[in-house]
Amino acid sequence: MTEEAGTQSPRRLEAFSDGVFAIAATLLVLDLSIDHLGAITSNDQLWHALGSISDSVLSFVISFLLLCMLWMVHASQFEHIRRVDSTVLWLNSLRLLGIVLIPFTTTLNADFGDMLIGRLALPLNFLCVLVLGWVLWQYVAKRSRGLLDDMTDAEVRQSGRRAFGALLAGVVVVVLAPFIGSWAFLAFAVSPLVGTALSRLGLRSRSG
Amino acid sequence: MTEEAGTQSPRRLEAFSDGVFAIAATLLVLDLSIDHLGAITSNDQLWHALGSISDSVLSFVISFLLLCMLWMVHASQFEHIRRVDSTVLWLNSLRLLGIVLIPFTTTLNADFGDMLIGRLALPLNFLCVLVLGWVLWQYVAKRSRGLLDDMTDAEVRQSGRRAFGALLAGVVVVVLAPFIGSWAFLAFAVSPLVGTALSRLGLRSRSG
Amino acid sequence: MTEEAGTQSPRRLEAFSDGVFAIAATLLVLDLSIDHLGAITSNDQLWHALGSISDSVLSFVISFLLLCMLWMVHASQFEHIRRVDSTVLWLNSLRLLGIVLIPFTTTLNADFGDMLIGRLALPLNFLCVLVLGWVLWQYVAKRSRGLLDDMTDAEVRQSGRRAFGALLAGVVVVVLAPFIGSWAFLAFAVSPLVGTALSRLGLRSRSG
Amino acid sequence: MTEEAGTQSPRRLEAFSDGVFAIAATLLVLDLSIDHLGAITSNDQLWHALGSISDSVLSFVISFLLLCMLWMVHASQFEHIRRVDSTVLWLNSLRLLGIVLIPFTTTLNADFGDMLIGRLALPLNFLCVLVLGWVLWQYVAKRSRGLLDDMTDAEVRQSGRRAFGALLAGVVVVVLAPFIGSWAFLAFAVSPLVGTALSRLGLRSRSG
Repeated sequence: MTEEAGTQSPRRLEAFSDGVFAIAATLLVLDLSIDHLGAITSNDQLWHALGSISDSVLSFVISFLLLCMLWMVHASQFEHIRRVDSTVLWLNSLRLLGIVLIPFTTTLNADFGDMLIGRLALPLNFLCVLVLGWVLWQYVAKRSRGLLDDMTDAEVRQSGRRAFGALLAGVVVVVLAPFIGSWAFLAFAVSPLVGTALSRLGLRSRSG
Repeated sequence: MTEEAGTQSPRRLEAFSDGVFAIAATLLVLDLSIDHLGAITSNDQLWHALGSISDSVLSFVISFLLLCMLWMVHASQFEHIRRVDSTVLWLNSLRLLGIVLIPFTTTLNADFGDMLIGRLALPLNFLCVLVLGWVLWQYVAKRSRGLLDDMTDAEVRQSGRRAFGALLAGVVVVVLAPFIGSWAFLAFAVSPLVGTALSRLGLRSRSG
Repeated sequence: MTEEAGTQSPRRLEAFSDGVFAIAATLLVLDLSIDHLGAITSNDQLWHALGSISDSVLSFVISFLLLCMLWMVHASQFEHIRRVDSTVLWLNSLRLLGIVLIPFTTTLNADFGDMLIGRLALPLNFLCVLVLGWVLWQYVAKRSRGLLDDMTDAEVRQSGRRAFGALLAGVVVVVLAPFIGSWAFLAFAVSPLVGTALSRLGLRSRSG
Repeated sequence: MTEEAGTQSPRRLEAFSDGVFAIAATLLVLDLSIDHLGAITSNDQLWHALGSISDSVLSFVISFLLLCMLWMVHASQFEHIRRVDSTVLWLNSLRLLGIVLIPFTTTLNADFGDMLIGRLALPLNFLCVLVLGWVLWQYVAKRSRGLLDDMTDAEVRQSGRRAFGALLAGVVVVVLAPFIGSWAFLAFAVSPLVGTALSRLGLRSRSG
């Protein structure tokens, strides 16, 4: 074995993580149910029943798309990670702990969206996952010779800036959520813009 | 890295998608339950109880097979996709959003199959997934040099026609469902025929 | 593409199937619950409550191990399958349909083990999966040049005999289940013996 | 086929196991629910409701991290296993049986943490998985030429000692759990220390 002792291929970590992301994303649908709405005997009543769970549906869509986004961050990070050590395995486990909590915090958000705790649970959950993703990337970047494939230093920095941009957007959501509720998640949509802005700043300062 | 910047291997996307398809397909079975039918003390009562959930069983079988078909479309598309960019990742996420909704629309179909909305929920859900699959294929075909492996233009067109045939069948189901309910899904069974027909038309017009 | 048109790598089929097997096996545990047993306030009551679900636990263990066995048959078949066509994809989908039904038939078996239908549901379910596995193998063996890797004819026949041995054991379980209940599944344990016996008969008749 | 007859690549076993681990870990979150706590109409009540499920949350976090640890042991073992035979497949199935039981024993631990059986269920469950992992490693180490890749004998012994260290920690948890409850799982945190200690003893006795 020419690889550094105590490290292993990220293949299993990726398969385990993909499974956890996929299951968490699919469990979200279990919250969509109109069973508790009593007898429904006409089209109008059914339409009304579906309307009455529109909050749950919105929560479901938002959480699903955010889970997909967190998965994309994970996938694009590990695209460059060639080996993992036990620190990476544990950081990834904590990150997945945050992922499996999302169906629970989504329920809180759907059921108690009119209370402060209900509004903050989901944004804080996402922020934790983003922070752990950022910490993981800082760790592998520091030890880059062992764990990363041959990225240039500029590429490593750009990737770090992108993770940091997502993290900033996460903070913005937490700050906005108490006031505007789920709409705060639109801040994530701007996150690439934030990342691009930071990235240009970086290029300018490097070429300047 | 000789690959185009901003693209990555579809390996993780495939693993995540396979997970979501597999879980959605397996969650369908949770709807099969005879717990709510009260005490069952004889073989006859059990047989009767099983008979009374035959609508649920039919819904389950149809949704399971349609999920398998949607998975096959996905698998055969990505058999030719060599790299994915962020547009593909997001289109795929929306497609998976449609997939995880299927257990919910299946329940609507089983419980409210005698109402218009109940009849349309599942066909519309499938149609959305097919449309997103078709859009994704149009996108990668346009950018074919970067994302597809070395298919000839004829092969790309044929593959697009096949996706379009499935899409047409989806429209037919939506149109038929209000009148004949779940039997409308038989239109999917004819879908390969539609694709073959279109494909021959294409060949004739090309050689003509 | 040097591969035969209309075929694809079995990689995605394997990932999808592994997901379905894994989820079906894990969902079984959702049946283990002591919530319905009322308030439990002492060690003795808890011990008694656990004892009262011993039938469910036995059903769970049997179904889990049989699912593992069916997965092994699947894995060892596809170890030799190099390409799949649409017939294989559909046969595999039907086989997975049988797999996801197992949590349901397990519940029937646990709750109505004293009735004929309850006793037959699980054995019949397993038999169907075994039959579909055997049909799939017959199909790929017939078209062996295209779909199988380079097995000798003797190896293909031996593999077919092993699948047939499992299938025979499945029939034996169905026949025995009405009389001896879950103990009938012990017949699966003898299945390798059956296979070996058939295999020796085959060798003798060939050398004779 | 140059490989030993009756063996196969561990790829499918790994995919199946990763799926089972991922689902068991994600199902844990289904126990987190505040639905049974009645109407919640203020922030204070919600905060109180969340406080009242803190035992469940602690059980969830402990079980999730222990599942991750058991997964790591599995992943690091199979990093070196090049081929698997039917004995390995069955030992692995029994190990996964232990894994899918963890959501059930976690519920017992959360609901009946004040009773002996409630306290012992989860530690005993983990111990069984560790024992099976250790047995599996002993088996492949004995047959090392066929199943393991080219590890030196010293590496094989070190790996066995690490598995034995985890197993000892498992025994310590079972012994401590009746007295100190969930805190006993901290013994797992010391497990690497135990392993390191044994490993140094081993080195000393070898060099001595």
